[in-house]
Amino acid sequence: MEPITTIKCVDEESQISAFYDQIPEVVNNLLTFWNTKEGFEHLEPTPMPSHEAVVRIIHKARSLLFPGYFTSTKLKKSNLAYFLGQETTELYADLSQQIVLALQHDCVRRSLPCSSCRPKGHEIALRFIETLPEMEVMLTSDIQAALDGDPAAKGADEVIFSYPGLLAINVYRMAHVLLKLGVPIIPRIMTEHAHSLTGIDIHPGASIGGSFFIDHGTGVVIGETTEIGSRVRLYQGVTLGALSLPSDAGKRYRDHKRHPTIEDDVIIYANTTILGGETTIGTRAVIGGNIWLTESVEPDTKVLLKRPELAFLGRGRKTAK
Amino acid sequence: MEPITTIKCVDEESQISAFYDQIPEVVNNLLTFWNTKEGFEHLEPTPMPSHEAVVRIIHKARSLLFPGYFTSTKLKKSNLAYFLGQETTELYADLSQQIVLALQHDCVRRSLPCSSCRPKGHEIALRFIETLPEMEVMLTSDIQAALDGDPAAKGADEVIFSYPGLLAINVYRMAHVLLKLGVPIIPRIMTEHAHSLTGIDIHPGASIGGSFFIDHGTGVVIGETTEIGSRVRLYQGVTLGALSLPSDAGKRYRDHKRHPTIEDDVIIYANTTILGGETTIGTRAVIGGNIWLTESVEPDTKVLLKRPELAFLGRGRKTAK
Amino acid sequence: MEPITTIKCVDEESQISAFYDQIPEVVNNLLTFWNTKEGFEHLEPTPMPSHEAVVRIIHKARSLLFPGYFTSTKLKKSNLAYFLGQETTELYADLSQQIVLALQHDCVRRSLPCSSCRPKGHEIALRFIETLPEMEVMLTSDIQAALDGDPAAKGADEVIFSYPGLLAINVYRMAHVLLKLGVPIIPRIMTEHAHSLTGIDIHPGASIGGSFFIDHGTGVVIGETTEIGSRVRLYQGVTLGALSLPSDAGKRYRDHKRHPTIEDDVIIYANTTILGGETTIGTRAVIGGNIWLTESVEPDTKVLLKRPELAFLGRGRKTAK
Repeated sequence: MEPITTIKCVDEESQISAFYDQIPEVVNNLLTFWNTKEGFEHLEPTPMPSHEAVVRIIHKARSLLFPGYFTSTKLKKSNLAYFLGQETTELYADLSQQIVLALQHDCVRRSLPCSSCRPKGHEIALRFIETLPEMEVMLTSDIQAALDGDPAAKGADEVIFSYPGLLAINVYRMAHVLLKLGVPIIPRIMTEHAHSLTGIDIHPGASIGGSFFIDHGTGVVIGETTEIGSRVRLYQGVTLGALSLPSDAGKRYRDHKRHPTIEDDVIIYANTTILGGETTIGTRAVIGGNIWLTESVEPDTKVLLKRPELAFLGRGRKTAK
Repeated sequence: MEPITTIKCVDEESQISAFYDQIPEVVNNLLTFWNTKEGFEHLEPTPMPSHEAVVRIIHKARSLLFPGYFTSTKLKKSNLAYFLGQETTELYADLSQQIVLALQHDCVRRSLPCSSCRPKGHEIALRFIETLPEMEVMLTSDIQAALDGDPAAKGADEVIFSYPGLLAINVYRMAHVLLKLGVPIIPRIMTEHAHSLTGIDIHPGASIGGSFFIDHGTGVVIGETTEIGSRVRLYQGVTLGALSLPSDAGKRYRDHKRHPTIEDDVIIYANTTILGGETTIGTRAVIGGNIWLTESVEPDTKVLLKRPELAFLGRGRKTAK
Repeated sequence: MEPITTIKCVDEESQISAFYDQIPEVVNNLLTFWNTKEGFEHLEPTPMPSHEAVVRIIHKARSLLFPGYFTSTKLKKSNLAYFLGQETTELYADLSQQIVLALQHDCVRRSLPCSSCRPKGHEIALRFIETLPEMEVMLTSDIQAALDGDPAAKGADEVIFSYPGLLAINVYRMAHVLLKLGVPIIPRIMTEHAHSLTGIDIHPGASIGGSFFIDHGTGVVIGETTEIGSRVRLYQGVTLGALSLPSDAGKRYRDHKRHPTIEDDVIIYANTTILGGETTIGTRAVIGGNIWLTESVEPDTKVLLKRPELAFLGRGRKTAK
């Protein structure tokens, strides 16, 4: 039996050929549509930063933060200078180019006169690279927090190589520095890339102290104006979000503090939601799982849900022996 | 000191060589297994659509929906015709080929006589491309809904480039059109690709109106027979699902309406679950977060959880000053 | 008008050139930092398994588990022997190399004398490949469980091609075998790769019986010491986790049984959390959605939440007609 894909007859071929003949008309309709379309500037947008380039920048910066980890080159103290020189130069070239694009795009969007985007982009790229040692110190504290908090962690290498929480925090720390340096668009592209890989959605505008650990992580949301102290630990599905908003919220609440403040040494268990810009969770507080919290909590407090009663139908709960 | 990877001795090499010698026997065992195995047709399956090709189709279609956004080519009105012509032709070639494979696979699976899969595949590909302008209008309304609903959104470009909600909705809108045009398998591969990237799981069979916005999105599930009106807004972790099913549910409930109906202008906050094919949420209703709802709600209703009491151990909740 | 990217003037160029001149100093600072840094061995780490190679191994093993599915080669019984021979040889080469790297890395980390990592790595790779037929039998039961449990499933091919639950289970089953064979690091890299693609986080140490089905899956967490029987079904957002831990948990609870036991034929609905190493869910129990459970349940029991009361403001709930 002949395989089905080779069934052919004159009639079929002529039908298919007729469809091909319709392509110019379809293209013409698309062209008319785009030429008369109002709304967002879908054509001739100012060149934007490239998603691929931003991902490449994340990788390059990580190879400088963890030399020897994300490279096939065999690194020793003796050849480290060459490696750092080469990687830094490449990162600088990529990053300055993308920042320039982001700055120019922003100038055009806001109809600002743009006369210094190029040198500004190069300066910011350099300032960013200069922060890498201090970022590495923060990340080392985050790695230690993972080792301290997770009994399943077998060693620092495992955390660096495979913990989604560390990846999300690492990308957030880079994006946050770029945002502080005044870079538009790129920080959000970075954190959304990490969100896509890890299910952890940290807005680059959030501010987060050292020794931060997110376990498992899928579903975590940390909003734009959240403030988190040092040595805080979160589990999967925790939302640090805004209170419910009216439907024109986009306009009215832009730039307000809308998300909570979490002080030092707080632990928040899985699937808990904490909302509101005036909500503060005090130092060393422990917030149980599956809780919905919209009020502030004093330091050294433990918040537990008085669990809703469960109904056991059938043989029921197991009694202790 | 020599690095460890080069530790070698005659004994080691002969041991390793002995393992290599065992490969033919291992292969033979695999071969015997596959040749005698019953069950799914793991061998000689009809050629299937390729995952990579489907991803390529998504990218091509997005570059036609947002010309100038996902391409490195510099687009102007003057060269737009060439760009659209080239991209449309490539999309048509890829898409018609994959649809033909999907149709043929389906015919074989259901033991139908297959005599017109090829011309049918080409026709569907053409019909799909013709719907792009109207799909673009829908997506423009979705982008505007994101700008209206999210105070952190800085502009349309940021939404197009980095919002997972828009990506998931965009892929869903393509998959839904293909499903309506009678294409098997490919729509589901498309939405599962978006699910993998965004954590948002929209079945291509769902029907969803314009100005739809999903914020954050991780954990959202929208089932096969869900109906959603216009200007609806969802947050992360919302499930629009089926009521609990017996264990042979797969057979008994296929093709029934099992998922809720959400009318126009409804807002559903984070981690709420709404279940059942007869559950209808009326126009302009607002459903709070973390709610479990299996009954219908009248229009203009606000549903809130009478929060389960919290226990505060230690210094307790903060009293207003 | 010239496009903005070409705005140039002598002054700009000299500014940019000055930034380039600062690179050597920045590199020197990085070098000094790395040369004086204490803490994790960021330099000269023992070569680690490569993430890319591990992903390639997953793909190769899946092409042996489902011959004809993940390959563009047209497979027939007549050429199957060549295909299996070729793929097995390639898988063996890749896998043995990565296992050797993982074993050597572990020896160095624990300061063990390393004299047999290479033959041991080759032997384990061979043992792993030998288990593929029995793994395929398990996966066939998992595919059947998806068809039985999901009314939206159209056929085995759709499950194999696009169900995230099956992908996560497949990768877990491979990682679990490697863990049992004594391979460090690689099993966790494998399951974190699946976690990234599916939002389903299964620790390779968990033990899981046949006919296992996870629907939708985003947010599922299955901890290291979880035991799951046969024919168990889970929905999105289910956590099988550990009870809350003190902050030095990492050290104190390593290697304890910290996660629940789920017996045969149990169903657990969406977003339910079951915690604790002594918690056992008895055979055929059904656990409703959105439940928080830290106690054991007898066989044949149905656990439901006495739903917290809802407040309906406005027109309210719909009354039955």
